[in-house]
Amino acid sequence: MSETRIESDTMGEVTVPADRLWGAQTQRSKDNFRIGGERMPLAVIHALGVIKGAAARTNLALGLLDARLADAIGQAAGEVASGALDEEFPLVVWQTGSGTQSNMNANEVIANRANLLLGGELGAKSPVHPNDHVNMSQSSNDTFPTAMHIAAVRALHERLVPALRAMHSDLAAKAAAWDGLVKIGRTHTQDAVPLTLGQEFSGYARQVEAGIGRIEAALPGLYELAQGGTAVGTGLNAPPGFAEGVAREIAEATGLPFVSAPNKFEALAASDALLFVHGALATVAASLNKIGSDIRLLGSGPRAGLGELALPANEPGSSIMPGKVNPTQVEALTQVCARVFGNQGTMQFAASQGQFELNTYRPVLAYTFLQSAGLLADAVDSFTEHLLAGLEPREDELQRGVERSLMLVTALAPTIGYDKAAAIAKDAHARGVTLREAAIASGAVSGEDYDRIVDPAAMLGPDR
Amino acid sequence: MSETRIESDTMGEVTVPADRLWGAQTQRSKDNFRIGGERMPLAVIHALGVIKGAAARTNLALGLLDARLADAIGQAAGEVASGALDEEFPLVVWQTGSGTQSNMNANEVIANRANLLLGGELGAKSPVHPNDHVNMSQSSNDTFPTAMHIAAVRALHERLVPALRAMHSDLAAKAAAWDGLVKIGRTHTQDAVPLTLGQEFSGYARQVEAGIGRIEAALPGLYELAQGGTAVGTGLNAPPGFAEGVAREIAEATGLPFVSAPNKFEALAASDALLFVHGALATVAASLNKIGSDIRLLGSGPRAGLGELALPANEPGSSIMPGKVNPTQVEALTQVCARVFGNQGTMQFAASQGQFELNTYRPVLAYTFLQSAGLLADAVDSFTEHLLAGLEPREDELQRGVERSLMLVTALAPTIGYDKAAAIAKDAHARGVTLREAAIASGAVSGEDYDRIVDPAAMLGPDR
Amino acid sequence: MSETRIESDTMGEVTVPADRLWGAQTQRSKDNFRIGGERMPLAVIHALGVIKGAAARTNLALGLLDARLADAIGQAAGEVASGALDEEFPLVVWQTGSGTQSNMNANEVIANRANLLLGGELGAKSPVHPNDHVNMSQSSNDTFPTAMHIAAVRALHERLVPALRAMHSDLAAKAAAWDGLVKIGRTHTQDAVPLTLGQEFSGYARQVEAGIGRIEAALPGLYELAQGGTAVGTGLNAPPGFAEGVAREIAEATGLPFVSAPNKFEALAASDALLFVHGALATVAASLNKIGSDIRLLGSGPRAGLGELALPANEPGSSIMPGKVNPTQVEALTQVCARVFGNQGTMQFAASQGQFELNTYRPVLAYTFLQSAGLLADAVDSFTEHLLAGLEPREDELQRGVERSLMLVTALAPTIGYDKAAAIAKDAHARGVTLREAAIASGAVSGEDYDRIVDPAAMLGPDR
Amino acid sequence: MSETRIESDTMGEVTVPADRLWGAQTQRSKDNFRIGGERMPLAVIHALGVIKGAAARTNLALGLLDARLADAIGQAAGEVASGALDEEFPLVVWQTGSGTQSNMNANEVIANRANLLLGGELGAKSPVHPNDHVNMSQSSNDTFPTAMHIAAVRALHERLVPALRAMHSDLAAKAAAWDGLVKIGRTHTQDAVPLTLGQEFSGYARQVEAGIGRIEAALPGLYELAQGGTAVGTGLNAPPGFAEGVAREIAEATGLPFVSAPNKFEALAASDALLFVHGALATVAASLNKIGSDIRLLGSGPRAGLGELALPANEPGSSIMPGKVNPTQVEALTQVCARVFGNQGTMQFAASQGQFELNTYRPVLAYTFLQSAGLLADAVDSFTEHLLAGLEPREDELQRGVERSLMLVTALAPTIGYDKAAAIAKDAHARGVTLREAAIASGAVSGEDYDRIVDPAAMLGPDR
Repeated sequence: MSETRIESDTMGEVTVPADRLWGAQTQRSKDNFRIGGERMPLAVIHALGVIKGAAARTNLALGLLDARLADAIGQAAGEVASGALDEEFPLVVWQTGSGTQSNMNANEVIANRANLLLGGELGAKSPVHPNDHVNMSQSSNDTFPTAMHIAAVRALHERLVPALRAMHSDLAAKAAAWDGLVKIGRTHTQDAVPLTLGQEFSGYARQVEAGIGRIEAALPGLYELAQGGTAVGTGLNAPPGFAEGVAREIAEATGLPFVSAPNKFEALAASDALLFVHGALATVAASLNKIGSDIRLLGSGPRAGLGELALPANEPGSSIMPGKVNPTQVEALTQVCARVFGNQGTMQFAASQGQFELNTYRPVLAYTFLQSAGLLADAVDSFTEHLLAGLEPREDELQRGVERSLMLVTALAPTIGYDKAAAIAKDAHARGVTLREAAIASGAVSGEDYDRIVDPAAMLGPDR
Repeated sequence: MSETRIESDTMGEVTVPADRLWGAQTQRSKDNFRIGGERMPLAVIHALGVIKGAAARTNLALGLLDARLADAIGQAAGEVASGALDEEFPLVVWQTGSGTQSNMNANEVIANRANLLLGGELGAKSPVHPNDHVNMSQSSNDTFPTAMHIAAVRALHERLVPALRAMHSDLAAKAAAWDGLVKIGRTHTQDAVPLTLGQEFSGYARQVEAGIGRIEAALPGLYELAQGGTAVGTGLNAPPGFAEGVAREIAEATGLPFVSAPNKFEALAASDALLFVHGALATVAASLNKIGSDIRLLGSGPRAGLGELALPANEPGSSIMPGKVNPTQVEALTQVCARVFGNQGTMQFAASQGQFELNTYRPVLAYTFLQSAGLLADAVDSFTEHLLAGLEPREDELQRGVERSLMLVTALAPTIGYDKAAAIAKDAHARGVTLREAAIASGAVSGEDYDRIVDPAAMLGPDR
Repeated sequence: MSETRIESDTMGEVTVPADRLWGAQTQRSKDNFRIGGERMPLAVIHALGVIKGAAARTNLALGLLDARLADAIGQAAGEVASGALDEEFPLVVWQTGSGTQSNMNANEVIANRANLLLGGELGAKSPVHPNDHVNMSQSSNDTFPTAMHIAAVRALHERLVPALRAMHSDLAAKAAAWDGLVKIGRTHTQDAVPLTLGQEFSGYARQVEAGIGRIEAALPGLYELAQGGTAVGTGLNAPPGFAEGVAREIAEATGLPFVSAPNKFEALAASDALLFVHGALATVAASLNKIGSDIRLLGSGPRAGLGELALPANEPGSSIMPGKVNPTQVEALTQVCARVFGNQGTMQFAASQGQFELNTYRPVLAYTFLQSAGLLADAVDSFTEHLLAGLEPREDELQRGVERSLMLVTALAPTIGYDKAAAIAKDAHARGVTLREAAIASGAVSGEDYDRIVDPAAMLGPDR
Repeated sequence: MSETRIESDTMGEVTVPADRLWGAQTQRSKDNFRIGGERMPLAVIHALGVIKGAAARTNLALGLLDARLADAIGQAAGEVASGALDEEFPLVVWQTGSGTQSNMNANEVIANRANLLLGGELGAKSPVHPNDHVNMSQSSNDTFPTAMHIAAVRALHERLVPALRAMHSDLAAKAAAWDGLVKIGRTHTQDAVPLTLGQEFSGYARQVEAGIGRIEAALPGLYELAQGGTAVGTGLNAPPGFAEGVAREIAEATGLPFVSAPNKFEALAASDALLFVHGALATVAASLNKIGSDIRLLGSGPRAGLGELALPANEPGSSIMPGKVNPTQVEALTQVCARVFGNQGTMQFAASQGQFELNTYRPVLAYTFLQSAGLLADAVDSFTEHLLAGLEPREDELQRGVERSLMLVTALAPTIGYDKAAAIAKDAHARGVTLREAAIASGAVSGEDYDRIVDPAAMLGPDR
C-alpha cells in the first residue's frame, strides 16, 4: 500500500496518494469516472499549463495577484506546459462535459507545485490556492475551450500541415519525374484515353495542396479564445482587460496569433470553430483515401493485378503465403481515414448539443479532434516515408496497357464522328483485334491517317 | 384563380382550395412550412388510412362510435389506405416533429370524405368531426409512430426482402454454375492462392442471405404498435381495450403480426426499434457495397483491367469515348449505399433526441428509413435484372491469372517450410520466371514433386 | 397509349414518346434505372444549360462550330438554363456515377430543340448532333462536375447565405433590444450566474455570422471548374484555350467569379471542394441545432417549463390536447439539421471513393449537397419568419429566475473566498431560504455588503 | 541502452530488445507504423491466445503436431490468453489491415515462450517455429477475424449486457417505487397531460430492456468463426476437420457457443456480423442518450429549472461558481454516446471496403467495436452507481407542476368537444387564471362536473 494524505474541497475530505500533486477534486473524478482508458489528451494538459501561466502574468499586470505568487504559479504552470508533470494528470476523457475536472486537476497540481516551490507543503492550499489564485479570473467554462483551441492549432501547425507538405513535395516530385510515362487512363475503372503517370500524380499532389489550403482557410476561427468569458460569457470575476491581456500572453507564449474571441457567449456555448476545422480534416481524409486506394490498385499484382506501380516491400506480407508483399501503408492510412470519417460524426453530434450558456461535450470534442489530427499526421508521415519514398513505376506494364487499349478510338471521333468511332471499338473488342486493324477494316480511315491521328503521345493535352 | 372555401380550426378561419378534401390545419402547415420538396412518404399516408379504419372499427366495437359514422369513416379511410386520395396529402416532411399535421391531414381528409359520403358538405365537420370522430381514442403521438411501423414493415416485407431473395437466388446459382472455374485469389488486392469463381460468388450469396436474416432478426420490434398510448403514453381518452383492439384490427387489415406495444411510454418517447432495423439496412448496404465493388473491379478492362468478368452493355458508356461500356449498375447501387450510410447518421441523431414523453423527429425518421428501404429494394432489383442476369465469366482471363501466379508457392510451405517457399517466390518475381522454374532452381523440390504438390485444383479446400 | 418515335444511339434503336425532346440514351437510362423517385436536381439541369451555351459560344469563338449551329444550340441551351424545359429531364439521381446520362439528356434535348429551331425534326441528329455539336470539346467527366459547382455556388449565393443574413439580422436586433433584460444563466442546464437575454441572443447572432463566414471561407474551391479536362483530365478533343474560354463564358453568364481549375486531373477524379463546403454546412447545422434547441427549452411551459420566451402560436399543437402550442418551427429546423448531419456522412463516403481518373459518385454528391443547402435555406427562412419574428420575452419569468437564484453567490467569492461562498449556497439550498438570508446567517458578510456586492446588474461583464 | 538480440524473418535480420519475446515481424511493424498511441486492444490479444491454444490442440488431435510441441504452445498460448504476457504486444491498431502483424506478434511470442519452456532460447525458432507450428493450419486472414469475434462476444457477455441489466434493474425499481407520484407530462417540451414519475421511468426501463434484447438478437452472427478458411477461404493448408475442431476447442475454452462459419469466403471477406451488432450498440446509445438527457433536464435547477429530480452531488460542480452541482454522470454518458454514434460511421465505412477475398480494415473495426462496447459498459456502470442510485424525486415540485397545468383540459374534450376545450385552455393562459376558473367561466361545465372529470389521478391510463 502506498502512503496517502488528506486533501479537501468544498464537499469534504478525500484521500490522495501522498506523493501526488493533484488534490481532492482530481481524486473525486478519478474515483467517480472509471470509464474507458482514454486519458485527457496531453496536448490539452500542456495548453492548460500555457493558460495558467498566461493568466498569472495577466493577473499580476492587472494588480490582482502579488508577484511572489504569480512567479510561483508561472513556474509551476511552465512545468505543466512543458510536459514535465504529465503523470500528475490521471483523468480520463469521460468526465464532466465542461472539462472542469481537468481544469481543477491543473489548478490543484499547479497550486501544490507552487506551494512546494514557495516552501509550503502538499495539500495546504496556501499560500497558493487552486481556485482563488491559480484559477483567478477564470472559469473552467472559458479555460477549457481555450485550451482546446491552443492544442488544436498546435496539432495542425506543428504536425499535420508539415506532414502534408512533405507528402505534397514527394507527390509533386513524382508528377514531374514521371511526366513522360504514358499510360492508359481509367474512368469507371474501365480503360479510357491515355495520360501520363506524372499527370495522374499531379492530381494527387493537387489534392494534398488543396487540403493544406482548406486547413488554413478554416483555421482562423481557432485563434479566437474564450478566455475572459468566465462562467457564462459575461466575464464575471475577471477584471476589465483580462480577456485581451491573457490572449496576448498566450500568443506570445506560443508564437501563434491568438486573439480574444469577439463574443464570449458564443465562445462558451458553442464549439463550432473546431467542428468546421474537423470538416477540413475529413476532406483531407477523403483525399488521402482516394490517393491511397489508387496506389493500392495501381500496385496490385504482381501478376494478376494492374501492376503499374511497384510498392516497397517493408515486411513479410502473409503468415501463410510466403513471399507476399502487401500495401500495408495504404491499409494503415485508409484505416485512419475510416476513423476520421467516424470522428466527424462524433464532432457533429457533440458540437450540436450545447445548451444555454455552455457546451458540455468538450472533452469528447477535444479528444476526437486531436485523435483525427494526430492520426492523420502520423499516417501521412508513415505513408510518405515507408511507401511513397520507395514507390517505382513498372514501365513495361504501363506501356503494355497503352498498346492494347481500345479507347484510343476517341482520337478518331472528331474526324469520323462519334457513331463510327464507337462501331470500330466494338468491332475490335468483339473480334479481339487491335484498334488499328478494326479501324482500317471499317473503311473509315486509312492506316496512314490512323497512325497520324491516333498517337497516344499527342493525346495528353492541348498545351503539350 | 381557383375557387376557395373557408375552413376553421381552434385558431380561426383559413382559406382552402374549394375542391380539396383537406382542412384548416393542413392548410396552415402548407403555408407555414415551405421547406424543401420532400413530401411525407405515401407509405405513411396509406398506413394512416389503415389506422383510421381500424380505429373506427375498434371504437364501434367498444360502443364509442355509432355504426353510421364508423362505416363512413371506414370507407373514407380505406380510400386513403388504397392510395386513391394521395393528392389530398400535400404536406412535406419538414413539419411538426410529432407528425401531428399529417395526422390532422388524414383526419380532415377522411372527415370531409366521410361527410360527402353521408350527404354532407366539405368543411362542415359534421356529422363526422376530424378530431372528435376520426381521431377518436387517438393522438398524433401514438398514431404517427404506429403509421411509421406499419409503413416500415411493409417496405421490408413487400419490397426489400423479396428483392434480396431474388438477388441471393441469382448469386447462389452463379456460385453453383461457376464452381469449376479456378481463378487466382486476391488478398490485400495482391495475388494470393486460388479459389473458384463459384466459391467467390458463394461468399456474396452468403452476405445477402445473412443480410435477409439480419433484417428478420431486427424486425420484431416494429410489430409493436404505439397506438393506444394517446398523448403521453397513459392512454388518456382511449377506452380500456382500445390498444389491443386496434392492434388486432391493424394486424387483420395488413396480414402482418402487429401487436400492442408492451410499454406505451417507450413507444411514444423513443424510435429505437426503427433505428435498430436501420442498422440492419446499413449492414446490408455494406454487403452490397462489397459485392458491387468487387464485380466492378473484376469486370474492369476490357484490356488494362482485371478482366475476369464481362459486364452486360446496357447503354453507351461515354459521351466522348465511343464504344465504352461502364459498370453503371454498380455505380447506381453503390451511390445508394452511400446514401444509406449517411441515412444511418440521420437516424441515430433523430432517434437519440427524444425529450420527455415524445420524440419529435418522427417525420425525418420516417422519411429517412423509407428512403433507405426503398432505394435498396429498387437498386437491388435493378442490379439483379440489369447486371447480374447478364454477367459472364471471361474464362481465358481466369485461367491466365492462375497460370502466372506466384502465390501457388503456398502449397509448398507445408513440405519445404515457410522460409524456403518465400525465397522461391521472391526469386521468381525478381527474375520474371515461373514459380515452377524458380522452385526447381532452388533445389528444394523436384519438377515431379512440384507438379504433384502445386496443383491449383487441389488447393480449393480440404473437402473437395 | 401515347405516340412514340424511334431514336437511336451507338447501341441501336429505342422507342421514345413522340413529343419528347429527349433521345435514345435518356430513354435507356429511364428504362434501366427504375430506382427511387429522387430526380436529378433541377439546379444541375439548369447549370448544364449554362454550360452548353457557354461551350457553344467558346467553340464558335475558337472556330470549331459554325455560327448557325452555335446560335441554335445557344438558344436551346438558354431554355434549359431558364427552366423552360424541366419536363424534358426525367432521369433520377441513381444512374451512372459520372452523370453521363444526364449530360446526354441535356445533349439530346438541346440537339432536338435546336434542330426544331433550325427547321429540322425530332430525332434527326442533324444539323445539330448531340455528341458532335452540343457536347463538342466536352465530356460528361468534366461537364458534370462543372455543373455541380455552378449549382452549388448558386444555391449558397442565392439562397442559403441570404437566408442566414436575414436570420442574423433578426437575432442581432433582438440582442440589442433585449440587452437590458437580466436573466439567470445556465451551465450544465443548472442555474448559474446572470446575463441578459440580449447577451444570450448575441451568442446566437455570432454563431450565424460565423457560419456565413465559414461558407465564404470554404466557397472559393467551388469557383474552380473542371470543364476543359474532357475524359481524363488531359483535355483530349478540346482545343487549346477552351478551358479558359468556357470558364469566362460561364462567369459572365452567371455573374459569379468562376475560373478554370488549375489541375484538371484533380477536378475530375475528386469532389473534395464540395465536401469541404458541406463541412461548413454541417457546422451551420450544428449552430442552428443549438439555437433552435435553446429557444425550444427557453420557450417550454407555459407553466411547468422554463417559460422565459413566448413562442408564436402558428397552428393548433395537438390533435388531442386542446389549446396546446408547440415549437413546431424548431422541430422542422432541427429535423433538417438531422438530415444535414447524415448528409455529411454520405458526402464523405462518396467523395472518398473516386478511382483513378474519375469519381463516379457524382449524382449522389450533387443531390446530397443541394438537399442540404436547399433545406437549410428554406428552414432558416421559415424559422426566421414564423418563429423569430414573433418571439417575445416573458419578462416576469426572467426576473423571477434571477431573484430566486443561488448562483449569485459567485459574486461573493472574490471577497470571502470560494470555500465560504460554496458553504453559503449549500446552506441556502438545504434550508430553502434565499441566498441573502444564508449569507448573512453565515456571518461572512453583512446585509449591507451583500446588497452592494451581489447586484445582478453588476454581474453582466467588466465593460458594462 | 538496453541490450538487443538479432531476430530474422524471410526479409532478413532485425534487432530486437534482448529480453522481449517478440520477434522480427513484430519489430518491423513497430518500426514501420509509428502511428498514434492506440494499442491493439488487449481483448484481441487474449483471444489470439485462446485461438493458438485451440489450434495446437486441434492440430495434435489431427496428427499434425507432436504432443511435446503442442503442449508447449498450449501453455504459452494460455499465458497470452490470461493476460500474463500483455507487455509483449507493443503494436498499434494502425498496421496492416488483416491484422497479420498482430497475428505474427502472437506467433512469435508464443514460439519464443514455448521454446523457453522447452529449454531453448529466444529467437531460435526451434523446436517451435512461429509460422510452421504456432500458426499451423492457420492464416492471419482467418485467425484475426476469429479473434475479433471472440473478443467482441466476450465484451458483450461479460461487460455490456451485465451493465445494462443492472441499470434496467435500478430503473425498473424506480418505476415501481415512483408509480404513485403524479407529474405533468411534456410533449414537444411543452406541458401536456399528466402521468406518474414511475410511468416515465418505466419507459426508460423498457428502452434498456429492449436494448439488451437487440444485442441478443444481433449477437448470433458473432458466434460464427472464420477459423479454418486460412488464406482465401478455401482452407488451403488446413486439414479436413480443422475448422470444426478448432471451433469446438474455442467454444470449450470460452464457455460460449462458437461454431465454424458456414461460408469461409464470406467470413474472410466481410465483417458484416460485427457491423450489425454495432448497429445494436448505436441503438443502445440512442436510448441512453434519451434517458440521460431527460434526467439532466428533469434535474435542472435547482431554482430556475424543471427541478423534478434531485441529482446526487458527487463533486464540486464549478471552479468559479461555489456550491454548484452538475449532472456530470449524464455528461460522461452522453459523451460516450457521441463517441458510439461516430464509431458507427467508422464501422460502416470499414466494413463496406472489403476487396475480393479479404477485408483489410480489421484492426480499426476491432478497435472501434471494442471501444464502443467497453465505453458503454463502463459509462452505464458509472451512471447506475453514481447517479441512478442516488436519484431522488422532488415531490413538491412534481405536485406543483400538476396543479398549475392547463393541459388537464384534455380530459374535458370527450365531454364538451375539442374546440370548446381548446378555447378554455387559451382563456386560462391569456388571463393567467387556473384551468378550473376558465372552465367554469366558459359556461361549458359546472365546478362540480369539472372536479369529477378533471382528476389527474384518473388520467393515468385506462387500466389503473
